[in-house]
Amino acid sequence: MYKAQTIQQHFQVSYQYPVIFSRNIFNPENEELIGILRHGSAKAVLVIETAIRECHPGILREINNYFKVHGLHCEVLVIPGGEAIKNEPAYIEEVLTFIHEHRIDRHSYLIAVGGGALLDAVGYAAAIAHRGIRLIRVPTTVLSQNDSGVGVKNSVNHFGKKNFLGTFSPPYAVINDAVFLESLDDRNWRSGIAEAVKVALIKDKVFFDWISANVEALNNRDMTLMEQLVFRCAELHIEHIGTAGDPFEKGSSRPLDFGHWAAHKLECLSGYQLLHGEAVAIGIALDTVYSRLTGRLNAMEVFRVLDCLKALGFEIFHPMLLEEHSLEIHPQLFRGLEEFREHLGGELTIMLLEEIGKGEEVQEMSHTILSEAVQYLLKSSSVFNDNPILIQQSL
Amino acid sequence: MYKAQTIQQHFQVSYQYPVIFSRNIFNPENEELIGILRHGSAKAVLVIETAIRECHPGILREINNYFKVHGLHCEVLVIPGGEAIKNEPAYIEEVLTFIHEHRIDRHSYLIAVGGGALLDAVGYAAAIAHRGIRLIRVPTTVLSQNDSGVGVKNSVNHFGKKNFLGTFSPPYAVINDAVFLESLDDRNWRSGIAEAVKVALIKDKVFFDWISANVEALNNRDMTLMEQLVFRCAELHIEHIGTAGDPFEKGSSRPLDFGHWAAHKLECLSGYQLLHGEAVAIGIALDTVYSRLTGRLNAMEVFRVLDCLKALGFEIFHPMLLEEHSLEIHPQLFRGLEEFREHLGGELTIMLLEEIGKGEEVQEMSHTILSEAVQYLLKSSSVFNDNPILIQQSL
Repeated sequence: MYKAQTIQQHFQVSYQYPVIFSRNIFNPENEELIGILRHGSAKAVLVIETAIRECHPGILREINNYFKVHGLHCEVLVIPGGEAIKNEPAYIEEVLTFIHEHRIDRHSYLIAVGGGALLDAVGYAAAIAHRGIRLIRVPTTVLSQNDSGVGVKNSVNHFGKKNFLGTFSPPYAVINDAVFLESLDDRNWRSGIAEAVKVALIKDKVFFDWISANVEALNNRDMTLMEQLVFRCAELHIEHIGTAGDPFEKGSSRPLDFGHWAAHKLECLSGYQLLHGEAVAIGIALDTVYSRLTGRLNAMEVFRVLDCLKALGFEIFHPMLLEEHSLEIHPQLFRGLEEFREHLGGELTIMLLEEIGKGEEVQEMSHTILSEAVQYLLKSSSVFNDNPILIQQSL
Repeated sequence: MYKAQTIQQHFQVSYQYPVIFSRNIFNPENEELIGILRHGSAKAVLVIETAIRECHPGILREINNYFKVHGLHCEVLVIPGGEAIKNEPAYIEEVLTFIHEHRIDRHSYLIAVGGGALLDAVGYAAAIAHRGIRLIRVPTTVLSQNDSGVGVKNSVNHFGKKNFLGTFSPPYAVINDAVFLESLDDRNWRSGIAEAVKVALIKDKVFFDWISANVEALNNRDMTLMEQLVFRCAELHIEHIGTAGDPFEKGSSRPLDFGHWAAHKLECLSGYQLLHGEAVAIGIALDTVYSRLTGRLNAMEVFRVLDCLKALGFEIFHPMLLEEHSLEIHPQLFRGLEEFREHLGGELTIMLLEEIGKGEEVQEMSHTILSEAVQYLLKSSSVFNDNPILIQQSL
């Protein structure tokens, strides 16, 4: 046999980016954005979500004025956000054309202003153009400011699979502007809080206690509390990505994805009628009850979690959890476990709760116990109390 | 003004992969490939270039037998290579569909067998599916075995721009099988040698001397010498990527791209009739003469470089170098400098030769001196001697 020779390649790449928490970032006196742009060739284009322009009628004028005052030119593209931009390849092509036509290179900037879906999709275009141009994310929702927008991923949907296409590409910078949160409707305001509950439950009991104690003020849209919530939640996510040793998910574990296997599937099964955070709240509820049914957590802790979610205004049950005319978990939802495994590959790894503030990973989930957990959620939910047919069905 | 807070994210990611030099890798007794597959979930699919199947009629049977002997199943997709696969998005969609349908996840393998263009395009699909599945490259040409196939990039063309879309995504492993080189036609055999001349000129005078001394044997297709050439050239590229500090090209410098600004543009201007290596040979000749005209290199060194290229059978002149009815550099070619700059962004950075074996970067190129360099190449080339009209034009 021919004797093979091998050269072993190995190197390290350092990544760093600031996550800035500010207000009114397009006010000319605010120098956060311009401070970043001055590092490079200063050429910049901006992509903004249609809904943001509609909620903030003066924003395009304000943006243009900002760049003018600072002596820079900035072209703007307005494009829809939400799951639509992730489902429709034509939008990605539109962003790529924008990058191409304005001759944005690896030392120029794409500033993306919008919710998590827009940032995912525009970030994907930025990551593949010229093998990666500089992306400045300006997340405009609670969810994107405290979770997805501060992370290292981007993606679009393909073949009907959520996030089938994407890359791991850290942004150049993230700027969270709290003012955008003021114009969110109640559903979107609430939705992002689910990720704060999630990360508190697996990492920080003090933070969970704080959320529980402040439910009413959060529901009354106290901005100071919301800014604190966003900051702590973002900080926990950033810390995890930076220190847990697997920022680009080479392994099979997704410790930040507590409650997410069911959430991803429910979003899809609801035809994206459920917001991500609403689906995550149900996913958290399901895996919390499952944790208890498999000997983790105590009963009081389960009540605390479910009560907190309900007090925040989340539903903890959805009809797609149960198979029709049955008390078993919906077969398509159950299949979500395998899809969740497949996305990372390797062994199935699901985060459960050992106690509030402490997660524990397991390698399998029981169909029977999941069905029991779903039934428990049905009985604990407002849906149950309002619907005699469901009561009858569950007996 | 609102006081902003900042969280600074920073982390490092380690990359490593083996580059294996072997023979007959689909012979069941050769354990290189199977040794790699055993690290994962062992699910694998293979994409192979149409031309390889045509040159090696038994190869699909051999591949199927290889996996069967080792107790594995492996689906195969046959697809065209060359610039066609990089220009046509439908081929990327075909590879993505193949990945999707066979449920390849991040712990499964995509084995890509073909030349540089196929590896670029299939590698791109592998990099964006599930944010990156494991790619094993099996390069089949001199060029891909000694240069592109051992590196960290992938790409496709878009908006008529070469490599407009792509990512930096190190492969899981590279296996160079020397047997594939035996079936290359003379043009493709020769083409890859241009990258060895290139890297020798900027980094390793001993290697350049070795190539010059072995031109005749290489032209006579001595396999032992070619394997040595491929190994040393690959080694120099791997070493540079691993140790020069900028594997993902965050800066403006592309030290390995000596001769490439003109080569990229010439490939395109020739409608891809010029092979990459053929264009690189002309680009090397141009920047070598330019180096001399700007006070670098001595005249004897210029003769050595041009003689080596010509002895290997390369043309060192192409009609697209000169503007029609003029002795000035072709304006479209000159514009290639700006496109080269734009791809990386930042300041223009071009590698020239200080002496054989030692490169030197400059930040500008003179239109006048480039025109002189092109005229010099015209006069030094066989095209000139065979074409009285060109002689007349050049006087």
